[in-house]
Amino acid sequence: MTETTWLWSGCIGMALGAVALFVVGKHRTQDEEGHTILHVIVPVVASLSYFAQATRQGSVVLSDGREFLFARYVDWAITTPLLLLGLTMTALHGAHRRPGLVAAILGADVLMIVTGGFYAASVATGPKWIWYLVSCGAFLAVYAGLFGPLRREAQDRDPVRRVEYGRNVALLAVLWLIYPVLDLLGDSGLQVWGPTATTASITVLDLTAKIVYGFVILAGARKVADHDLSHGHVEPAPVSTEAVPSGADAHPHPRASRTTSR
Amino acid sequence: MTETTWLWSGCIGMALGAVALFVVGKHRTQDEEGHTILHVIVPVVASLSYFAQATRQGSVVLSDGREFLFARYVDWAITTPLLLLGLTMTALHGAHRRPGLVAAILGADVLMIVTGGFYAASVATGPKWIWYLVSCGAFLAVYAGLFGPLRREAQDRDPVRRVEYGRNVALLAVLWLIYPVLDLLGDSGLQVWGPTATTASITVLDLTAKIVYGFVILAGARKVADHDLSHGHVEPAPVSTEAVPSGADAHPHPRASRTTSR
Amino acid sequence: MTETTWLWSGCIGMALGAVALFVVGKHRTQDEEGHTILHVIVPVVASLSYFAQATRQGSVVLSDGREFLFARYVDWAITTPLLLLGLTMTALHGAHRRPGLVAAILGADVLMIVTGGFYAASVATGPKWIWYLVSCGAFLAVYAGLFGPLRREAQDRDPVRRVEYGRNVALLAVLWLIYPVLDLLGDSGLQVWGPTATTASITVLDLTAKIVYGFVILAGARKVADHDLSHGHVEPAPVSTEAVPSGADAHPHPRASRTTSR
Repeated sequence: MTETTWLWSGCIGMALGAVALFVVGKHRTQDEEGHTILHVIVPVVASLSYFAQATRQGSVVLSDGREFLFARYVDWAITTPLLLLGLTMTALHGAHRRPGLVAAILGADVLMIVTGGFYAASVATGPKWIWYLVSCGAFLAVYAGLFGPLRREAQDRDPVRRVEYGRNVALLAVLWLIYPVLDLLGDSGLQVWGPTATTASITVLDLTAKIVYGFVILAGARKVADHDLSHGHVEPAPVSTEAVPSGADAHPHPRASRTTSR
Repeated sequence: MTETTWLWSGCIGMALGAVALFVVGKHRTQDEEGHTILHVIVPVVASLSYFAQATRQGSVVLSDGREFLFARYVDWAITTPLLLLGLTMTALHGAHRRPGLVAAILGADVLMIVTGGFYAASVATGPKWIWYLVSCGAFLAVYAGLFGPLRREAQDRDPVRRVEYGRNVALLAVLWLIYPVLDLLGDSGLQVWGPTATTASITVLDLTAKIVYGFVILAGARKVADHDLSHGHVEPAPVSTEAVPSGADAHPHPRASRTTSR
Repeated sequence: MTETTWLWSGCIGMALGAVALFVVGKHRTQDEEGHTILHVIVPVVASLSYFAQATRQGSVVLSDGREFLFARYVDWAITTPLLLLGLTMTALHGAHRRPGLVAAILGADVLMIVTGGFYAASVATGPKWIWYLVSCGAFLAVYAGLFGPLRREAQDRDPVRRVEYGRNVALLAVLWLIYPVLDLLGDSGLQVWGPTATTASITVLDLTAKIVYGFVILAGARKVADHDLSHGHVEPAPVSTEAVPSGADAHPHPRASRTTSR
């Protein structure tokens, strides 16, 4: 198979995967709906990225003759934060509870992808390897967030979520670990393999980390929703913004104002 | 009028529209303030986009000789999600209540614009029409969100908001339907018209869909705010983040902890 | 020192500053954690931007022979909204309370940076100065937000936050005022100085406005957290999204449903 055939396979595989995930995804709770939408958007974006690469609209030729597939990094800059957002949703029960932590993890992830893109686009050797190291450093920061504070948050949830988070984060961590190795050995780095083998291996990994991973996550989200619904964990939606006077100090003494309004 | 004159008209029209919307917009409630800010930002961005196009800083010449006005798509990628955000604010009373749904609608919208940009930038015929079809598909997904779940949410609100949403979504849906037709017949597609007619028609449509539409929305937001204030729907602001210990499991048993704290 | 030496100084200074801010930053409350994360991300992004500029990966040569350091504007488009977000966190106790106001201030700020980038990238004199004026106008809008509604919000908080906001906003306002002057007199504008003096002065200013400013903010955040913790302002985390049925009208009559559920 040529590199272009692999890219078309990625395009079609992601498109079919998006349809399949859309079909199996349920919407019974806010949490389940969030996971379904997220795991459909991810392969849709990836499919279009592969389409752009296959039609040579998502790449430029660098001065050293290598082809830089920039669409790959644009795709990853959008889809990897979404996949991590899914993990934070499971661990935190909605990402609102620790916005700083979520921002730190997603910020480190975007940094990892952007610096990885500079690595692939660099022609001069010195900057190239510094970008690679910075990208790996950001990757470690993502791991530190996932296995440190976010794991502790997940362990404070109910047992169903605790197990769910543990499995999902392990699967993601193992799959994602392969990317920097492929990108190191492949066409952008040490060139142990040529561009076709690089694209082939990344395509297979991408389909696993987005479609197969998506099915695993949605199956887990279904289990969490079953549990929540059967235990009656149904709470009113958190936020109402009915006519808050915009200039007023709307919330100085919550308990006092609550008493008054009764 | 030349194409450049049309672009300057767009620039000045949007700037004057922004000033006018700023003057008429009120800030009495969070909801009204949100709508005012949103409908001022939209024409400001559009005005600067037209300025960049008029000075030829927002376009590149493609290999087939056509001029690709990329600033138009950057503008739309920012302004169309904002306009949809306004609709979700009306339907949901704050976008927080169904973040997954809001993300899905806005995500499909951005996809529609980005793939539309690839359509306009494509020189090869095959990819061009696939981009067009994908963009139309994303457009249908936006409509499905607006007329399906979001409409149902709006119908669960009070009668004032229900009517408000119904009128706004109908107006937006009709205006936006003209864009893909103009972009199909115009310079990027079938070339029934040349670049000047394309820019002229899009400028007039843009002014309608951003300025005229903005006035309609702000008039409606005023009515909703009148209603809310007269019915005393004034609730405390939803979110307080006073000194939540960041590592602690802050919210495991809301009712229990509330009891303790009294 | 050459321009490149200055750029490397910026890269290393920002990296060391990020490490130092990471070390001194505490995480005892949501508010303190948010400030710490924010003031570490800012110099990390800046350091990478200086690295890209120093290795000539973050600049292009314009048709008039000037070098346009686009990485500088990408950096600022990310870091300046984050710095303003910190101010809104102090004034509003979490940015959720007035999303419209926060969006307006951050939106005006991004507009200021993007139009400033067009100013620096413009070769033709006419558009260049219009971009400059628009950028200054957006800057005034940022100031109007900071010293108008946001200051009023801060004054409705407790005395510790009031003092904190007053000092921070004054420091930021003075430091930021120097940027448009340097950019006006420097290589992009009137060319009173050459590119080396421009880069040297901006590097020193950047280190002050990101590292020194970061230390001041984190010292203040520490004082606010001390105050909050000693006064027991510990509230439950604001948002729980446990199993809200996604289609249901989850929050029509908050008081009624609360009664029912007891």
